[in-house]
Amino acid sequence: MYDNLAEEKPKDKFTISINDDITHTSLEVKEEIQTEPEDIIKCKFWGFGSDGTVGANKSAIKIIGDETEMYAQAYFAYDSKKSGGVTISHLRFGNKPIRSTYLITKPDFISCSKQSYVYNYDLLEGIKDGGKFLLNTLWTEEELKQNLPLQMKKTLVEKKVEFYTINATGIAEEIGLGSRTNMIMQSAFFKLAEVLPIEEAVAKLKESIKKTYGKKGDKIVQMNYAAVDAGIEKLQKIELDASWLEGEDTLAEKDLPEYVKTILNPLNAQKGDETPVSAFVGVEEGIMPTGTARYEKRAVAVNVPHWHIENCIQCNQCSFVCPHAVIRPFLLNKEEVESKPEAFETLEAKGRGLEDLQYRIQVSVLDCTGCGNCADTCPAKEKALTMEPLEAELSQAGNWEYAMKVEPKEDVMEDNTVKGSQFKQPLLEFHGACAGCGETPYATLVTQLFGDRMLIANASGCSSIWGGSYPSAGYCANKHGHGPAWASSLFEDNAEYGYGMALAVKKLRNTIKFHMEQYMEANGKEEIFTEWIENMKDPKVTRELESKIVELTKDSDDENLKEIYKLKDYIVKQSIWSFGGDGWAYDIGYGGLDHTMASGEDFNILVFDTEVYSNTGGQSSKSTPRAAVAKFAAGGKRVRKKDLGAMLMTYGYVYVAQVAMGSNMNQLMKALKEAESYDGPSIVICYAPCINHGLLNGMGKSIAQEKRAVEAGYWHLYRYNPQLIVEGKNPFTLDSKEPTASFQEFLDSEVRYTSLKKTFPEVAEQLYQMAEEDSKFRYAKYKKLAEN
Amino acid sequence: MYDNLAEEKPKDKFTISINDDITHTSLEVKEEIQTEPEDIIKCKFWGFGSDGTVGANKSAIKIIGDETEMYAQAYFAYDSKKSGGVTISHLRFGNKPIRSTYLITKPDFISCSKQSYVYNYDLLEGIKDGGKFLLNTLWTEEELKQNLPLQMKKTLVEKKVEFYTINATGIAEEIGLGSRTNMIMQSAFFKLAEVLPIEEAVAKLKESIKKTYGKKGDKIVQMNYAAVDAGIEKLQKIELDASWLEGEDTLAEKDLPEYVKTILNPLNAQKGDETPVSAFVGVEEGIMPTGTARYEKRAVAVNVPHWHIENCIQCNQCSFVCPHAVIRPFLLNKEEVESKPEAFETLEAKGRGLEDLQYRIQVSVLDCTGCGNCADTCPAKEKALTMEPLEAELSQAGNWEYAMKVEPKEDVMEDNTVKGSQFKQPLLEFHGACAGCGETPYATLVTQLFGDRMLIANASGCSSIWGGSYPSAGYCANKHGHGPAWASSLFEDNAEYGYGMALAVKKLRNTIKFHMEQYMEANGKEEIFTEWIENMKDPKVTRELESKIVELTKDSDDENLKEIYKLKDYIVKQSIWSFGGDGWAYDIGYGGLDHTMASGEDFNILVFDTEVYSNTGGQSSKSTPRAAVAKFAAGGKRVRKKDLGAMLMTYGYVYVAQVAMGSNMNQLMKALKEAESYDGPSIVICYAPCINHGLLNGMGKSIAQEKRAVEAGYWHLYRYNPQLIVEGKNPFTLDSKEPTASFQEFLDSEVRYTSLKKTFPEVAEQLYQMAEEDSKFRYAKYKKLAEN
Repeated sequence: MYDNLAEEKPKDKFTISINDDITHTSLEVKEEIQTEPEDIIKCKFWGFGSDGTVGANKSAIKIIGDETEMYAQAYFAYDSKKSGGVTISHLRFGNKPIRSTYLITKPDFISCSKQSYVYNYDLLEGIKDGGKFLLNTLWTEEELKQNLPLQMKKTLVEKKVEFYTINATGIAEEIGLGSRTNMIMQSAFFKLAEVLPIEEAVAKLKESIKKTYGKKGDKIVQMNYAAVDAGIEKLQKIELDASWLEGEDTLAEKDLPEYVKTILNPLNAQKGDETPVSAFVGVEEGIMPTGTARYEKRAVAVNVPHWHIENCIQCNQCSFVCPHAVIRPFLLNKEEVESKPEAFETLEAKGRGLEDLQYRIQVSVLDCTGCGNCADTCPAKEKALTMEPLEAELSQAGNWEYAMKVEPKEDVMEDNTVKGSQFKQPLLEFHGACAGCGETPYATLVTQLFGDRMLIANASGCSSIWGGSYPSAGYCANKHGHGPAWASSLFEDNAEYGYGMALAVKKLRNTIKFHMEQYMEANGKEEIFTEWIENMKDPKVTRELESKIVELTKDSDDENLKEIYKLKDYIVKQSIWSFGGDGWAYDIGYGGLDHTMASGEDFNILVFDTEVYSNTGGQSSKSTPRAAVAKFAAGGKRVRKKDLGAMLMTYGYVYVAQVAMGSNMNQLMKALKEAESYDGPSIVICYAPCINHGLLNGMGKSIAQEKRAVEAGYWHLYRYNPQLIVEGKNPFTLDSKEPTASFQEFLDSEVRYTSLKKTFPEVAEQLYQMAEEDSKFRYAKYKKLAEN
Repeated sequence: MYDNLAEEKPKDKFTISINDDITHTSLEVKEEIQTEPEDIIKCKFWGFGSDGTVGANKSAIKIIGDETEMYAQAYFAYDSKKSGGVTISHLRFGNKPIRSTYLITKPDFISCSKQSYVYNYDLLEGIKDGGKFLLNTLWTEEELKQNLPLQMKKTLVEKKVEFYTINATGIAEEIGLGSRTNMIMQSAFFKLAEVLPIEEAVAKLKESIKKTYGKKGDKIVQMNYAAVDAGIEKLQKIELDASWLEGEDTLAEKDLPEYVKTILNPLNAQKGDETPVSAFVGVEEGIMPTGTARYEKRAVAVNVPHWHIENCIQCNQCSFVCPHAVIRPFLLNKEEVESKPEAFETLEAKGRGLEDLQYRIQVSVLDCTGCGNCADTCPAKEKALTMEPLEAELSQAGNWEYAMKVEPKEDVMEDNTVKGSQFKQPLLEFHGACAGCGETPYATLVTQLFGDRMLIANASGCSSIWGGSYPSAGYCANKHGHGPAWASSLFEDNAEYGYGMALAVKKLRNTIKFHMEQYMEANGKEEIFTEWIENMKDPKVTRELESKIVELTKDSDDENLKEIYKLKDYIVKQSIWSFGGDGWAYDIGYGGLDHTMASGEDFNILVFDTEVYSNTGGQSSKSTPRAAVAKFAAGGKRVRKKDLGAMLMTYGYVYVAQVAMGSNMNQLMKALKEAESYDGPSIVICYAPCINHGLLNGMGKSIAQEKRAVEAGYWHLYRYNPQLIVEGKNPFTLDSKEPTASFQEFLDSEVRYTSLKKTFPEVAEQLYQMAEEDSKFRYAKYKKLAEN
């Protein structure tokens, strides 16, 4: 973006650099810092997810770089959370060229646009004596005195910091800007940082608003003008004195696992650079304990679901579709009902096997991202879920803590129905995926069905980020300590990686069998071993035999039994999966995917098909349909979507299914069960709406959008089960009906399609028609397969 | 193989090492040579292709290593020719450990099992004073005196070499061993080298024969015993004196291109290590001039085709199927008939457009590998071709030289028929592919049809070896200097490599168009440009316009015309291909192949489907059918062959064909023509029998085997032409009929299948049945596609 500027001004005047990727310092840098010119103004901004802070900072630096004689520089640092992650902007301004190749350590000015960050981050770290701090907060002065952590108050007092607050959230709502506080915070920054005379700054800001929003109409422009004015007018200076340092600290440390204390929390607080190497002893090589995301309690949602107990029909669909596993049904027995807090209201549980139990839907409001798919999906006549402000629901945090103490009732109902599956503990939860993510509900469900005996190889992509971004893990274990073992190798070798796991596990389990046979040859028949050998591919039976075999082998001196005991983790039938997106499955990893599926080995693949490279920002893949706009396909994709499933069906011995949770939950259940139990290669291709699609109804309707896709004939549901060939039946079942909704209206509901009309109107209509033809081409093919 | 020995004898006694891959020396090595113990006996053996020399040498060294107290060592060097290549064995024996990590430079003993090598190689290089030389030859002493090159005779005389000959070829034939001279040469070696007392050596040799051939019956054993005895008895010592040095040298240097003189010939003579770097100026980076294989004249065939003019029906099928383009039809006009040598007999040419021309089939006997497919394919009632000993046909070499002077008559007949295609010059010839290779006839044909405007990207594999092994190139140009431009990048990126060529050429041709349009905008309409723009994808029209455009642009000062002239090589519509085997197309390069086919670009792929990794020795690929024995599938492949064509047909816009030349030549012609002219991605999958298949009828029946494969329903012919969709027709045409021959009998005709009966008899029958089911599964699928 600064290339253009360079042409307008003498080149040596521009040392503006924008770098998105500097996240650490080094010894060399520390030396350099000491030589940084004294008169540089250094400003640090703490922003929240997509609240617009980074955009506002980029705009600010552009105004200063463009319109003044000053030099400017900016670095932006992000964490890997896709919902509500922290962003930190480091801006420098000065009269000499700026050549600081490192982040700001001694800021003159600090801004924070999210109130709760006072607890999460050391916001004022390194602030200069007499520096300025701007906080967006709803708190009054008195509340500030009560709520701010002691350490922060100490810094404010000791460093004589000029402390300003503004209720940007309140102002934005009042003006009509919703949650967009960035313009208010930006003008407050200009007021406080004094880089430009404030009148000039305001003029420039308004000019830039006109340029950016002019096309959207005068109303938008005027609202933003009002934001600029309010950012200056509504600033409030807070005077601190020694009395602030009295009272208890609000940040008392809880009793936490060692990893959480020494690694997770410091790293999440942006203190990774200061964490000593010794802290990582025992978790070298990127090893992470599972189940640590639950310690983050990020409270990033604006609105969270409120359960209306009187309307609930106990279908469990809210839990089924939740991308973050934050809403779950709980079943309480008599004792639990007796000891529950009053606020933990319950219903009589409905359904066979649930007699004598009480039922409750409980939300973990501090882990919720507020997408709203649960409420949108709720099929009750009167919605049993509505989205309410987080603040109003904070008391549910205590209820969640109680719910976590309730004994899981996993065996009361079979897990082969939508409802039944949700009484099984999700072994993936609270990760950093986008609010409304279309991928994670599939992954969560898979962990509910098979997670306690599961190995996952994960391709690069969104699923490797929400699946295992250091330092927190959403994958977790049940009360027996059983949960998915997860690892990520490379983008290009993930099918092979999972296949290798499958071969290794097969070999190890055959070794168990070998030693059982050897043992019995020497010592006569052993019932337990015979039963295991006969059922070694049966997850249920092998799980039942597990403890018996461990018991039998653990203290033995017999060489064969000793070997079996060593391999006790492999007694249970494992469920081995490669997870990845379409960029992996259709493109970069396809050669390997094909190779491993062709092998005939018992091994499963789950594809999160977002029809685009999601994690890297929306590049076109071979899964991208014709007419969709994506990076590398700015003029709309010109060839049709690859039919990955059809290609793999040509083998005849690969289980293939296409699913869309929002369209048919039962079909998804069937597909997953069949795929996993098939003693051969399986692949399930899951339609997954993504922020890159630009759903006009928002990501709170991502599950509903899946339904629309199928109704419009845009996506098709089918299962190809080679097992049926053995039974003399047609292996192919077409599970979706003849389209009932308009294909073109579906395209019209997503920006990836509608944007083509604006950028390439001359071809848009034709490409839309061709896209519809493509879908018909597919459907016709599937119908033909379904015949006879 | 020596691992076993190590257990029987004290370890430090064994320094035997066998290394197949040492082909060069270095300065360090030269130093080491000086420190090599004096008493090591060094023996060098020149062998020919698969004449058994290397095997005999391995057996000899095993006998000495096993049965004596001596230390032994062997290195084997091969060239890259797959038919009739040279092999050089370097054997050392001594009483101290041998640690020579380099080839022999000063041999005590040299053996040569092919007479003609006296002309091709500096056989006696470095021989010690008083060393011994053993030559397998048909020549009498007088003929030797006449025929040996002067340089060789000088060395023999000056170094006082003990010179022995033996007519091993004659003896082997007499005994009944056919062309297997190795046992005779081996016993002669033992007699002369005196490593063991000869009685002991004979005893050991016979023992080893019993072990090796015992199972094959006493007759074979006795024949080999006779060979051992003859090798000793029939040795003849030749006495040389100064009179041998009189007379002319038989090796007078011909008038040859610089590259052939300075690089090709020295490298082929195994003098690569001595060729100076300066010789490569102008051909750096592995650049090779094309059309250099024709200078090799390797004369490797035992039998070559003899043309019986009276039986010939002028169908040109012999030429069509020839793997090495050594048999071709020629058409002579009146003048040429008048000036032709008498021996160059001709017939009146038959067919429309051939009036007034004379016809002749001419064989280049010195380039022929003697496979015999031409004669086998000849459909004349009385065969117009029979295989006769090379010696009897040597006079045809002169006729070939004359044929090369005959003006090609490429325009007299359309090239869309089998017959017509063969009047076009093959632009691939005389390469090192195996005799009877199933791949090269396809490649040759493609060059006849499109070679004069062709770019080829070649995957690693056999086709990269016969296609472009340094220093000789079989690809060549026609009289206009037009021929395929060929390059090989990596195994894994060959589709992308060709695709990149396609994109680059497209861009360059659009640049021509741009400059034409710019020119016409400034200067008014230019008929030639308008015509070119309208027909820029038409090979014929663009070729016709080429010289006119060059003429118009070459001396112009106009900027646009100058730019067009710079791009004159791209005026003609190019034909861009990726060539490779199934290891590439089905496995290692499949991800890229799929990606480039999915692109929709105009680009062609030719797959030589040998159903196995041929070049590396027969590893299983995803193309290998069930039940076939291959490396990594020693117990027979257990899953069915991948249906590459069906997978690519799922796109709907990829041209896909499966062909088998020997089954249906016309279908192949159609497929190639359609594929190349289709303005989109195309792939043609060619069934190619290979030495790895172990055809029981031999590789002289490789073309006939293709026919059997189709008749048995083992291989299917089809074309999927997306062009037909546009015309509202079914794009799929099934070109092969319901099988008429037994599938099981087909399997029985190839060792890759029959060997399973011996190694895994318990599963063989079942796998054969499943393989037949697999073929039916495929055929049923194709039939379904062909419906409606």
